[in-house]
Formats: sequence, structure tokens, C-alpha cells
Amino acid sequence: MAAPSPLLIDGLQFCRWSRDVFEQMRAAGMSAVHVTIAYHENFRRTVDHVVAWNARFRDHADLILHARSVEDIDRARASGRTAILFGLQNPMPVEDDFGLVEVLHTLGIRFLQPTYNNQSLLGSGWMEPVDGGLTRMGREVIGEMNRLGMVVDLSHAGERTALEAIACSSRPVAVSHANPAWWRATGRNVSRPLMEALAARGGMLGLSLYPHHLPDSSQTTLARFCAMARDTAEVVGIDRVGIGSDLCQDQPDEVVRWMREGKWCRPGDAPINFPAQPDWFRDNRDFPRIAEGLTAAGFRPDEVEKLLGGNWYRFLRDALRPLPATSDTEAAA
Amino acid sequence: MAAPSPLLIDGLQFCRWSRDVFEQMRAAGMSAVHVTIAYHENFRRTVDHVVAWNARFRDHADLILHARSVEDIDRARASGRTAILFGLQNPMPVEDDFGLVEVLHTLGIRFLQPTYNNQSLLGSGWMEPVDGGLTRMGREVIGEMNRLGMVVDLSHAGERTALEAIACSSRPVAVSHANPAWWRATGRNVSRPLMEALAARGGMLGLSLYPHHLPDSSQTTLARFCAMARDTAEVVGIDRVGIGSDLCQDQPDEVVRWMREGKWCRPGDAPINFPAQPDWFRDNRDFPRIAEGLTAAGFRPDEVEKLLGGNWYRFLRDALRPLPATSDTEAAA
Repeated sequence: MAAPSPLLIDGLQFCRWSRDVFEQMRAAGMSAVHVTIAYHENFRRTVDHVVAWNARFRDHADLILHARSVEDIDRARASGRTAILFGLQNPMPVEDDFGLVEVLHTLGIRFLQPTYNNQSLLGSGWMEPVDGGLTRMGREVIGEMNRLGMVVDLSHAGERTALEAIACSSRPVAVSHANPAWWRATGRNVSRPLMEALAARGGMLGLSLYPHHLPDSSQTTLARFCAMARDTAEVVGIDRVGIGSDLCQDQPDEVVRWMREGKWCRPGDAPINFPAQPDWFRDNRDFPRIAEGLTAAGFRPDEVEKLLGGNWYRFLRDALRPLPATSDTEAAA
Repeated sequence: MAAPSPLLIDGLQFCRWSRDVFEQMRAAGMSAVHVTIAYHENFRRTVDHVVAWNARFRDHADLILHARSVEDIDRARASGRTAILFGLQNPMPVEDDFGLVEVLHTLGIRFLQPTYNNQSLLGSGWMEPVDGGLTRMGREVIGEMNRLGMVVDLSHAGERTALEAIACSSRPVAVSHANPAWWRATGRNVSRPLMEALAARGGMLGLSLYPHHLPDSSQTTLARFCAMARDTAEVVGIDRVGIGSDLCQDQPDEVVRWMREGKWCRPGDAPINFPAQPDWFRDNRDFPRIAEGLTAAGFRPDEVEKLLGGNWYRFLRDALRPLPATSDTEAAA
């Protein structure tokens, strides 16, 4: 019997999905990838994306499967496939309807960001001039996510909103894709107080490979990324760090306009482009090679395994379990 | 250890749901009830009904649970509760979108009528002047329902549409609530050729207690209903008959207008009312008492058990099982 493949988990990707991308996941031996299925879509349009994913799971059943739990990640590893976890980067699919949180969970959503860059019904995004913190509905929705076993993902949140969400949540939360703000000074990255609050409650940070989050943008070297990883692990602990690459492979540039502008403003005139990836992280096949950089930065083999998947796995094993008092609807799902 | 409660399954109800109704189900010892959650609603509005049911499952978790399989019926019996199975009496929730069949299945829908009284995108209802049979999309959707393990329910279908659906389906189908047309001559009931085609393919008929389907309307006696049951069992076999009461308890009369007129016509002026129930079947508490009438009509105890639940259970055990080649999405659900 072959030894099980190493645990490799990416905390966020939003690629233009294709058989090529799924084959690259397999070439890398990816165990699981959290994929974004909606930003500014309402509930009904989000369901269109679920339908599209259902077709992908049938068409590429030899490469991927839909994961609702870590048991599905185990099943993917055992059958040489990659587990796909659904997430929403913005709560627009919830509309103004608390009950849709459970429905989205039933459809397989396992990560939800209470805010993207802007104000939402749940809280303030990092680009708003005023961060009013978690809203009344935000508190209700986090309670429901805690009950169901859905990860509160604070990427793109404002500082106050994020801190209040950590305090409000009865379960550990995540920042699926961001870097320390003291390595790249942008409100999109995570301040030291927020990082400490996250870690103190058992949360997870996925280090981002998106150039706008990296210390030297597209020119950031693997060595510098891994030095940042080492510094982060010293602040939050080796068990709280993973990767959330934010890989947006093969996407046309109009997609980054959709991500930023959605439907909430008149489309801008300025050209808008995806930044170039660092040359050492072009696609999923480069994911396992991060191990070399981490080793060179002084991490032990067991620490490298934690950073590349073990930590996300352990976090998800706890985070995706419904609370015991959950309804029978969910217990049966 | 107490002996397990008898299997009592009602093949269709559309009550005004309340704790009172659920307590009556428990007083009767109902094992499972197939409930209608939508008629003319589009997908999004159907989801509102799922949300309302999720709240009921939480609020009345001591009385009911959401059933997705016969294992959930077993779980309900073991815990002294009633299993609720979701169904749609019209395919409007599928809209014109094949992919929504799987999404609705994921949300727990286990019965779907390809037509209500009118023409649908899938086939012709019994009230249409022309029955064009199963449509192109109808054939696609039945194939998908077969794959997923969703019951094709031919109540309210036109004769040709129903016969073509039976021939098209790779798995046994049901008429969840109707009576033999030779006991009450209405196109809503089931002709002898249709009944024989249904039975020849291992299908199920749920005998209806809705007055407009009964031989003497609201005045039909229990003895006459049970004589009809005996006659039906002689035609289709004792294993193919159950009950589908069509109980519409506590509904205001505007609901029967919604059922008949939906949004497809200008609302009529004529008063429209639910008919009075037979005095021996007022609510769920009367369900187990049908056994007395069946016994008096000459059925043996094991036959009575089949008619009141055993046959539906065995049918559902096979019908709700996904086909082995189904996607991982569904296998995990």
C-alpha cells in the first residue's frame, strides 16, 4: 500500500476553472482547495455557479470532488483527487435573509466573508472610510455560521469589523488570504493586533501570494515570502499559519473589474489588470515547491507540513463540524 | 425495549403547517409524510419555503425531522418523530434550467410532478385540451431524477404524458394521490390502462382521500373507500397500493385558488372552496383508523400494514437511492 500523499491545502483560489487547472492540481498533489464561487451575485445567481460546479464534478470526477467536510478531503486523498470547498467572498448571496445562510450551507458553502472591500449588511470592508464594526445582522449571521459549521473568513474586512467578528464568534475564525501589514502596508493585510486576536482565539491565517499583498509585489522572491512566513509564525505560532494563495489563474482582466466594482458603481474608465504572478508561483504545480523555500528559511519538515496543509486540515476538522444542537436538517446533510 | 411503532406513511399532504398538525401526526404515530412545498413558485420562492421548513425543523425538533432517505424514516421512528419528505406538485421551481433538478435534490426535494393541471415545460397536465406527451425537456429531467433518486410523481398528469413518463423512466414511478377513474370518472383519477402500466413497472399508487377524487365526494364512507382499495389491489397487486391522503388541513380557501389558478390566469370571480373532508378522515389522527375499514373489507393484518405504510417504505427505499454512477456531490450529500 502506498504511503498517503502529503497534505497540501490552499486556503483560497479563484481561477478560471478548466480541466487544465484541475490537472495541475493533481500534478501538484493538492489535497484540497477552497474556491470562491461568488462575490457580488445574489442568491439566485450564486445557484447558477453551484450548477456550473455540479457539472464540473461530473465532467472531471477523476480529478476533483465536492468537499463538505474533512472526511471528504480524506476521501479525495484516498482516491487521488483534489477536494473542492466552496466559499463566498462577500455576503451578497445571503441577501437580507438570515435563512439563506442555512440553505447555502446545505448547498455546500463552507467559507463566508462577512464583507468584501465595501460596507455590507454584515459589516464594513477595509476600503470604507468609516468602519462601523459588525452590524446587528452580522452578529446574527455569525451565530448561525457557528451553529452550522461555516468558516467566518475575515479577509477584506475592516479592522474594527474583524476584531468584533473574532470576539463575537464562538468558534475560531480565519483570514483565508492576507499577509502581515507590517510586511506590506495596506489595509487589506492584517495588523499585528488583529493577527494576535486571531491567533489568541485559535484562528488561521492563510498567507497570500497575490502580488498586491506581497512585500515586493510581483518581484517578491520565494526567500522573502518564506522569511515573512517565519516572522508570521513567530507572532501567531506555527500552528496558526497556512497558505491562501489567492491564485486567479487564466482569468481575463474584466474579472478583476468585476471583483472590485461588481454592480455597486458606474464602471470605471481606467484600465484594470491582474498583476503578474511571482515567477516561482505560476499555478498549482508550484505549490509543493514552496516547501523548498520554507526549508531554506529554517522550518523543520514537520513545520513545513503544517504550513502547507496540516494546519488548515486540523482547523477545518473542527470548524466544519456542526454544533451538536444543530437541526436535523443539517445533521442529515 | 418497546416494539417498533407500525409503519404509517402518507404519500401526500399540503396542510397549513403548525405545531397542532405536527402533534396530530405524533398522536397518530405517523412514520413519514410527503409534504408539498411548492406549486407555482419559481426556484427562488421555493427556497423561501425551504427556509420556512428549516425553521419548523428547529422549532419542532421534538416532533418532526427532515427526511432525505428511508434511513431518516428509520431515525424518526426510533426517536418517536415523524419524517417529512419534500415534494413539488409542479415543475415551476425547476424553471427552464436542468441544473436546478440537482440543486433541488440537494435541498431535499424527493418527489416532483412533471405537470400539475396545465401544460408545463415537461409535459401536459390532465386539464389541457391537448396532451402532447412528455416534452424534450421532460425526458431530460426524468433521466436526471432517475440518476439522483427523485420520485417521478404522475398525479395531475395527462394520460399520454403519464404513459410516456412511465416508459421513459428507468426506475419505478408513483402516482402519489389519486383513485381509479372507474370509481370516480374524472381525468384527475387514473385509468385502468395507466394503472396497469404503473404496476407493470413496479410503481406505486397512493389512494386519495380528497373528496373530488372519491366516489361519493365528501359523503364517501370508509367502507366504500376500502372497497375501492380492495378493487385497486386486485388490479395492481397488494404491493403497489398505499395512501396519499391529499390532506389540506386548516388551509384558507384562497389556497385552493392558488393551487388551481397560480399566476397563469386572471384570478376568477367565482367563489372557490376546499370541499368538506369525509367525517372519518379529518386529520392525521384518523389515519391509523383506516386500518379498521381495511380489515372489515377483508384485508389480512399483513396486507393492512402494507397499505398503510409498508409499501411506500419499500418503494422509497429503492426510489430514493442515487444511481451508483451519480456525482460525488450527491454521494456526499
